[in-house]
Amino acid sequence: MALVGTKELRMAIASTTLNDVNLQAVGALVEQIRSNPQLAKTQWKSEVRWQGGFKSEARSRNLPAASSDEPTTLGGADTAANPVEQLLGALGNCLAVGYAANATVAGIRIKSLRLDLEGNIDLQTFLGLAESNAGFDAIRVKVHLDADAPAEAIKKLHDKVVKTSPVGHTLSRAVPLDVELSL
Amino acid sequence: MALVGTKELRMAIASTTLNDVNLQAVGALVEQIRSNPQLAKTQWKSEVRWQGGFKSEARSRNLPAASSDEPTTLGGADTAANPVEQLLGALGNCLAVGYAANATVAGIRIKSLRLDLEGNIDLQTFLGLAESNAGFDAIRVKVHLDADAPAEAIKKLHDKVVKTSPVGHTLSRAVPLDVELSL
Repeated sequence: MALVGTKELRMAIASTTLNDVNLQAVGALVEQIRSNPQLAKTQWKSEVRWQGGFKSEARSRNLPAASSDEPTTLGGADTAANPVEQLLGALGNCLAVGYAANATVAGIRIKSLRLDLEGNIDLQTFLGLAESNAGFDAIRVKVHLDADAPAEAIKKLHDKVVKTSPVGHTLSRAVPLDVELSL
Repeated sequence: MALVGTKELRMAIASTTLNDVNLQAVGALVEQIRSNPQLAKTQWKSEVRWQGGFKSEARSRNLPAASSDEPTTLGGADTAANPVEQLLGALGNCLAVGYAANATVAGIRIKSLRLDLEGNIDLQTFLGLAESNAGFDAIRVKVHLDADAPAEAIKKLHDKVVKTSPVGHTLSRAVPLDVELSL
């Protein structure tokens, strides 16, 4: 029967897209890089435009711009997360991709995943009242993962995600910044 | 004349909001922190929720959620900047706030400000093909600043911004990450 066939096809496709992850695309990329490691060398960009006050917009590739602002207590208009909140968000989003990718490869179905990130900043350096660390001294993340797998498999997944996160590595290492004024 | 008075008042207010920056709010914060340095100790948060595939959303305070995704070549649906692009955006937005704040304090009017950020990532570690640095090895920023000030004042402004950026400090130092699985 045609209808049954269609349903079975849908189920077969669903089984290859566990966690809605396009495993075929990831697998193809891995194979391409395995035969030509140069393909692993990627470059990423962002263009930020100031919009007055403490507002700005960041744009990558042809994607919609993402807004940035500061809370009113810091002199902003409070229309969007501020840069340090965006940094925490970037780490959480990166870890989420890591869980989705590695769980899918391991055949683990994720039911839900939430990450709570936080960090402290002493504003004195930014405000010119001290010369110390202007940034986060540490970042804490609580991962709330509900998945169809034994505790041991979840622990293994977690360790792999933390060990291979691009944003995690960028934050936990000292990265040289070259900020050049183009006059 | 009432009308002239109103216009003069508007002009006076405008002069205290150079670059659309609420200098009064920033000044009040500085004075509060000067008399009570404990007020400089701030905490920032982000809550990230996975949405299937490589999509997730980051939310801070009561602000609208910001979307995250990956390019199709990496198995995503390409609906938003990915986490490493967000990281570059966060740095650019942070530097933009720094220029706006410090230029305003120095009485410099910013006509336009754009920041071009880029960095390279070797995907082999993220994809499990190598055990090396999964993140940016370095980040380069070109700052395009058009402002009403002599070159020397611009250079001084630039140095101060780079020296006091919260996201800049976070990236250029090794920040301890504590990623805990909440079972």
